[in-house]
Order: sequence, then C-alpha cells, then structure tokens
Amino acid sequence: MRRSVIRSAKALSNCSCQNHWNVRLLRPLASSPSRFLSSTSVLDSPTPPPSSMPPVSLDNINPKVLKCEYAVRGEIVTLAQALQEELKSKPGSHPFDEILYCNIGNPQSLGQQPITFFREVLALCDHPSILDRSETQGLFSADAIERAWQILDQIPGRATGAYSHSQGIKGLRDTISAGIEARDGFPADPNDIFLTDGASPAVHMMMQLLIRSEKDGILCPIPQYPLYSASIALHGGALVPYYLDEATGWGLEVSELKKQLADAKSKGITPRALVVINPGNPTGQVLAEDNQRGIVEFCKQEGLVLLADEVYQENVYAPEKKFHSFKKVARSMGYGEKDISLVSYQSVSKGYYGECGKRGGYMEVTGFGPEIREQIYKVASVNLCSNISGQILASLVMSPPKVGDESYESYSAEKDGILSSLARRAKTLEDAFNNLEGVTCNKAEGAMYLFPCIRLPEKAIKAAEAAKTAPDNFYCRRLLNATGIVVVPGSGFGQLPGTWHFRCTILPQEDKIPAVVSRLTEFHKSFMDEFSD
Amino acid sequence: MRRSVIRSAKALSNCSCQNHWNVRLLRPLASSPSRFLSSTSVLDSPTPPPSSMPPVSLDNINPKVLKCEYAVRGEIVTLAQALQEELKSKPGSHPFDEILYCNIGNPQSLGQQPITFFREVLALCDHPSILDRSETQGLFSADAIERAWQILDQIPGRATGAYSHSQGIKGLRDTISAGIEARDGFPADPNDIFLTDGASPAVHMMMQLLIRSEKDGILCPIPQYPLYSASIALHGGALVPYYLDEATGWGLEVSELKKQLADAKSKGITPRALVVINPGNPTGQVLAEDNQRGIVEFCKQEGLVLLADEVYQENVYAPEKKFHSFKKVARSMGYGEKDISLVSYQSVSKGYYGECGKRGGYMEVTGFGPEIREQIYKVASVNLCSNISGQILASLVMSPPKVGDESYESYSAEKDGILSSLARRAKTLEDAFNNLEGVTCNKAEGAMYLFPCIRLPEKAIKAAEAAKTAPDNFYCRRLLNATGIVVVPGSGFGQLPGTWHFRCTILPQEDKIPAVVSRLTEFHKSFMDEFSD
Repeated sequence: MRRSVIRSAKALSNCSCQNHWNVRLLRPLASSPSRFLSSTSVLDSPTPPPSSMPPVSLDNINPKVLKCEYAVRGEIVTLAQALQEELKSKPGSHPFDEILYCNIGNPQSLGQQPITFFREVLALCDHPSILDRSETQGLFSADAIERAWQILDQIPGRATGAYSHSQGIKGLRDTISAGIEARDGFPADPNDIFLTDGASPAVHMMMQLLIRSEKDGILCPIPQYPLYSASIALHGGALVPYYLDEATGWGLEVSELKKQLADAKSKGITPRALVVINPGNPTGQVLAEDNQRGIVEFCKQEGLVLLADEVYQENVYAPEKKFHSFKKVARSMGYGEKDISLVSYQSVSKGYYGECGKRGGYMEVTGFGPEIREQIYKVASVNLCSNISGQILASLVMSPPKVGDESYESYSAEKDGILSSLARRAKTLEDAFNNLEGVTCNKAEGAMYLFPCIRLPEKAIKAAEAAKTAPDNFYCRRLLNATGIVVVPGSGFGQLPGTWHFRCTILPQEDKIPAVVSRLTEFHKSFMDEFSD
Repeated sequence: MRRSVIRSAKALSNCSCQNHWNVRLLRPLASSPSRFLSSTSVLDSPTPPPSSMPPVSLDNINPKVLKCEYAVRGEIVTLAQALQEELKSKPGSHPFDEILYCNIGNPQSLGQQPITFFREVLALCDHPSILDRSETQGLFSADAIERAWQILDQIPGRATGAYSHSQGIKGLRDTISAGIEARDGFPADPNDIFLTDGASPAVHMMMQLLIRSEKDGILCPIPQYPLYSASIALHGGALVPYYLDEATGWGLEVSELKKQLADAKSKGITPRALVVINPGNPTGQVLAEDNQRGIVEFCKQEGLVLLADEVYQENVYAPEKKFHSFKKVARSMGYGEKDISLVSYQSVSKGYYGECGKRGGYMEVTGFGPEIREQIYKVASVNLCSNISGQILASLVMSPPKVGDESYESYSAEKDGILSSLARRAKTLEDAFNNLEGVTCNKAEGAMYLFPCIRLPEKAIKAAEAAKTAPDNFYCRRLLNATGIVVVPGSGFGQLPGTWHFRCTILPQEDKIPAVVSRLTEFHKSFMDEFSD
C-alpha cells in the first residue's frame, strides 16, 4: 500500500475533512431554529426571551467542543447501547442474544479478572482499621497486609481520604521511580512523576501547556488513538499527521516525519511535539529500538517534545519484540535532561492488570526547566490531586510481588495466564480477519487491538453514500446489527484516504472467540455477497 | 464597609490587576535568556539549537496557563512545605514543631476520621471475592455487606475495574437521583447526573462548554474559590466579578448582580453564566431561600446558566440557617427544564464525610437541550469515566444508612460528632479572630472557612511593598514563619481593593484549637506592635 495522498496538516486541523474524520455529522447550524437566539439578542432585548429558548445552544457554545470527536464512544456505541436495551425488553428480537463490546480496551468488562494481590492491598488501604484484626490474616495474604502498612506509612497521617501532594503521594512516587529504574536501567526521579486519574488527563495537561493557537502543531500518527485528536481539538491546536505504513506492519519512518514536518512548517504551523504510541493503538505494532533512536534524534534535532504513550508497555505478544521506553533509548544514546524534552505516559488501565475503572496513571516528565515544571505543577494543583486508590494501584503496577513473596506464585500465574491468553486471542482473530475476502490484517505484536483493512466493493461505498455515512461506518453498523459485535470504524482513528478499516479489541474471553469468529465470518460473507460488484 | 471601587470585568479578565489577584509575580519575560529561542528560530535554523536550550520555555507556552493562578496551593504552601522539610532535618530550628495546614478544606489530613460504613463498602467493592467468606461477617457490618452486593449488582459483570458509562454507572446515578429527590422533594433524573473525579473537573467541563473567547463572561462572587478564576483563565474567558457585602455577612445582592452585568455588557462582554457558591467559600455564608429566588429569577431573565457550587450542602452550622438547593428553589417557583439552565455541583470531599482523596463528585445538569447534553457527554467520554470508587462513594453520600440499618447508630454518631465539633471550632476561631486588634470576622454559617478582614497598619503595607509582595501575603508569610500556621491570603480569592483578608479553615482538631488560638493571638499582637503607625 502506498501513501499516495498525504493530507495537509492544515486541512486536517481545520476539520475540512469531516467526512473522513468525523463520521457523525453536526446538526446543520444554518437551519437550526435556535440560531436566531444569539446571546447578543438576549442581552440587547429589553424583554426576556421566551422560556422555550435555552440560553445555551449549538450556535453559541465553544466551537472547539463542537469540533472534538471521540469515536471510541461514538455513534456505533450509542447504537449498541440502544440494541442492548431492546434485547433486555424484548429477548429474541435480534439474531444475537448479547452485545459484545470490542470497541474499547476495557478488559474487565469482558470478564478479565483483576490481579488478586492488587485488590487486596486496595481494600486494606480503603479500610485500614481491619489491618490489626485477626480475621484479616485469614482473608488476605501476608504480603498484601505488609504492603498496605508500607503504603499507609508513606501517607502523611495514614490519611487515605486526604488530598495528597498535587503530583501524588511522595512515597508512591518513590516506588514508581524505583520501578522505572528497574525497568530501564537508568535513574528516575520521583519529582518527575505526576500521578493522574488515568493517562488521559496527563495528555490533556501537556496539550494545554504546549498549544497556544491553531498555529501550534502536534505531530500524531495516523491511525491514532482519538484521545489525541480530541485533545488537540479541545485545546485549539493543529493536528499534523504522519502516516504509519500499513505495508510494513504499520512502520513508523523518520523520513515521513521529516516530510510532514516540512509540509506543516511551509503552511505556517509551528510543530511543538511528536506523539508516538508504542505499542501502537489502534495498530498494535511494537517499535524496534533502532527505530526509536531515529525518532529521539529527530525530536532532538527539531526541538520537539516527545510525547510517548507507553501505556501498553506490558502488552507485547510477538516473541521477537520487546518494549523499550523512550527514556531508556534516549539515555542509552547519551542524551540527558538538557538534550530532549520527553513525557512518558503510563496507566493502570492496560497491561495484564486492566484496571480501567480505577483511573490510575502517571506521566514522567523529563527535560523541562524548573520554571516549566512549576507551570505543570500549578495546572495539576488546580484539580488538587488524582484519586488515592489510583495512585496506590499505579505504585503496585510498577512494583508487583517479587520472588519469595507469599503472593508471588499466584500473582505470576494470574499475570502469565492473562498475557498468554491475550497472545492466543490476538493470533486467532488476526488469522480470522485474514481469512475474510478482501480483508488484510497486520499482526498485533502488542497492545490490545487489531486494525484490519477492508477493501469494500463499490456498491457498498455507494450504499454508504446513500445512507449519508462513511463506508467503514456503514460496514460497522451492519456488523453490529447482524452480530451484536461492536467495533470502531477506521475513520475515527484516521486512515489513508480511500482505505477503510475498523478497530477490534482482542479482549473477548477465549471461550467466546470461536463464536465471534464464526459470527464475523458469516456476516462478512453475506455483506460481500450483497454488495459484490 | 462600602463597595467604593468596583473593578471592571475587563480589567479583571485581562489580569491587569496582577498585584491584586496574582501574588506570585511571573518571571519577567523580557529578561529571560530563553526568550531568544523562539520555536520559529529553531525551525528556520539549518543547524539544531544548542542542547542547553530547551524547546519549551515560559516564552512559548500557552499564555492561558501562565495567567492561571491557584493560591490555595500557591506560594505560602510551597514555603510551608520547605519549612516542614527543615523541621524534619533540624528539629528545633523554628519556634514551632509542626506545620498546621489551614489553607485547604482537607479534613482527613488534619485527623478527621472517615465514616466507617462508607469505607467498609468501598473495601468490599474493591475486593468482592471476600464477600462470601465467613471471616468477612466478623469484620464488616451486615448492611455494608448487603450494600456492597447491591452496588456490585448494579455494575455490569460486577466489574469494578471496568470503565463505566461516561456519565457514571447507571445504578449509582439512580441512587444519587433518588437522594436528590429525597433532599429536595422534586423529581431528579439519573440521566442528568454526570459523575466526575471530584467537583473540579465538572466545573472545568462547563467552562469549556460555555467559553468561546475572552468576550464571554462568567459572573463570579468576589471573594471566590480560585478554582473558578483558574478555570476561566485556562479556558480564556472573562471573569465578571460581583462583590459580596462583608458588612451584611457576605450578603449576595441581586442589585449588585444587575449592576455588574450591565457594566460587563457595556464593555462588550457577553455574560454566559453566574457562579454561586452556597454555602460560601471562602466566605461561609448560607443563602436565605428568598435571596436564592431572586438569583434564580435574575438568571432566568438574563438567560444566564446558573452554576451552583453546592459542595458544602451538609456543612451548615447556624441553627437558623438551612441549605436549599437551587434546583429545589427553582422548581418551587414553578420553573422547570425550559425555564432555567442549572448545574449543581456536589463532591464527596466536603460535608461530614471529607473524602478528598477519593475524588468523587457529580454535577446535575438540567435545563439544557438534548443536543447540548450530547456535547457534554462527548467531552466526558474523551476521558472515558470517573474513578469507580469515587462513583460508589458519591452514591453512598447521597444514600447513607437509614434508621433500622445495623450501621445507623454508629454512622449517626460519627456524623453528628464531626458536624457538631466543626460548629464549635468555627465559633471558637471566629471569636478568636474578632478579639484581635484591627480584625473583624463574619460568622461561618456553613462550609469550612473563616475569612477575617485585617486592617493592616500603613507601616506593614509599606514593608510589604518593600518586600515586593501584597500586604496580605506579607502578613500570611509572617504568620507562617512565626507559628507554622498556613492560611491563604485574601488576594488569592479576590477582595475589595484596599481591604485585606485571609482564609483559614476551621479544620484543626478540637484539642489543637486552643494552641492555634494562642499562637495566632501572640503572633498578631507582636505583628501589630512591630508595625503600628
């Protein structure tokens, strides 16, 4: 597949590409009756407006909010929720009896069990008064009790219900930086850690810091995780796309970065940062270390902040691949604080832990001067702190039980069971997609997703046009209606114009995978039969 | 006290009043060496910049971030943290042996204990596999176990580690809306509830929705809780101040609202919303129902969204005062969905529960059309959901144990103990402040703060000028250095020009209050002696 058409950064950032990016069409403003109630007319009017006209309408809210889209919980999911209600009220009303949410990396919603040790510690920290009770010895492992005590001792006054330092509890940041050091073999500083409610708020914080206007550009992979496009839209910046090469397993080529950077600059955009998602979302590739060195060098040369989304660092399935943090790569090149500005995102929602609902995560911020760190701290302080359970969990994820600990055996068995099962599921689904007519699917070397490419027949594209939707959205809607399987159209992530994809998680439980495969296969066959040219 | 000088909305929003609002002076940009590294020069340069020059500097970050200030965790707190380190490394190095954080409404950091029932339920939901174990019966109350089962049954798949619906778990929203109905006597709809990580993100969401540019104004009380000024600055809007009348116990007069609204409009500002904090922060007043009716009528007439900060709804100490939600007031006036757009904020951080670290809260959004609700939902969905423990706690706070439940007695005793102690502490501190020379202090009818007014001698004002700081900041710094007591200067909240205040929480534990009072009194006397004219 060739990158034959490179869309301009400006066009993307200005969202003139609505049919490509935004599947859901916005209500046409010109024909909206509420258009005639501008706030000015209200204010100039001596009499109050009729009570049926609300002071807030699509015409007078922040246009950045209107522009923002987040397909992972977009139209297809809303349709799925409605179907689920129908199934509840009228069982048998559809050719399936459950909705299977493959739209989102939400492992526990599909039956993945939490790691016992982590939950034991969380429960004990939530209700420390049972720590001294004899019954507790019977209910909880000894090392969970010990860990809970350790954590409580790191919290001033053992107050798990108090606001913490706005970067997070210092002792937990110590644990996390020790975990980073053990992972990378290079020093980490607890003062560089900002604990956040999942990784998303941390991404927003950096976008808020860097973006001054629509002339500030953020280089993002296409396809990308739509948090990035949403956050750039909300902060009013320009998304500068760089395309991953599907033909080489979603390869990230520095030559492409250079080309898009030059293109953006020629359009008057000031590139501020480069987003890299490794392992890739939605694309599942794991970057080779050599490739990462090239990216680091590029950011250093161009004075770009490297925003490294590393939330899938534990999700690597390809035996020949290994996760390397960008900080480790930069340090191993001899680049320190003064050479490159680097932010690494981690989350408790992914990995083998999959604790999405706990909203824990952190960013490690290196290579910024103290005056900038102070600004980041200030913005963090406005929201006071992230939730303490999420903070505790982030520390546990970065320092799980070790050989010799009472929980080590069960912890290892749970972890290995989850990761090896994910690897098997990824392979089975990848094979299944590749067996479908007109579908090609790269390997999920890591992360939690497959992003197959569907060559849709002309007749299907026409039908989508008639239905006033994008072809990939049309396909995903039909898939949902026929099978109850929820996936996200590629247009929500970005894709080469003229190509169509969807993102499907590898998360359905293993015993359900055969049924998923046969439902998918059957649907696809009948879809292609219906629309074959 | 007369509102002799009313500052213009524009002046405030443009932050030309930096000496009044922003105590911490920003590093002078003109003299910064990094000024000469603009991103343009980096990009235009054929050779990479010297590695010691970071790509991100105060000159090229988002100016809205620079503008934002949050005094509650500002300069005085940073000084206090440094003092605390000194006390740790050199005990006896200061005339006090501990730092007493009265800067922030963080009850559990000062020793307040959590409500046992709430923590039991949270622990059980964190580790549900112990629910069936016999030891659990001995450790947890029967109604906590029952409530945990109820909550788990409301969560699809009982997965407390899964992302929830982006508004929060539906069953918990049902519980919350039932709680609102019981409180107000008017219907509430679970679809109006958006659960959030504390109230702060909910405030940001509405500011993000409403503010399009610096021409959009948000009416805020002065003094205000600086989350509002910070959020308005971050979203690039105009803070339109309305002054509370200190002479009438921080009275909120509709005539003042009208005057400031007209003034803002005459300057080309479009007012979008009115923030009311009730009970007041930092001012502690509890609004009378009649006053609230006037405010509702004003918002309805002027087409303003009413943003009602009601997080202190359980903190009412004046026996003659009662909390009424603005929604109840509006509905009792016969105003429904079509008449007024109203957002009510609630949090688990305040009340008698004080669970700041759990980051639970919600907003109830009424009187917006479905197309606007969809936009709010979309923005919420970008961050997926708020943390599940916080969601659970928000539901518990709105439906605590009832008469006849096993935990009811202990729950009631804990709650009443905390609230009656807070009332006593408020009174003792209020009296102590009023006994100081040149200090007057209104009653804390509610909330968690006192906001005394200090008439500073001319000599102290001159000394502050010489020290390049605001007089109230000067006073608070001296107070900290002499006593270890941390309070927040009034300039962080806004105050009538020429008046000086500070905010002090009523949260030190009761056995510490006498020492606080005597340290305060002694300090104040020596300060006045030193600076008396």
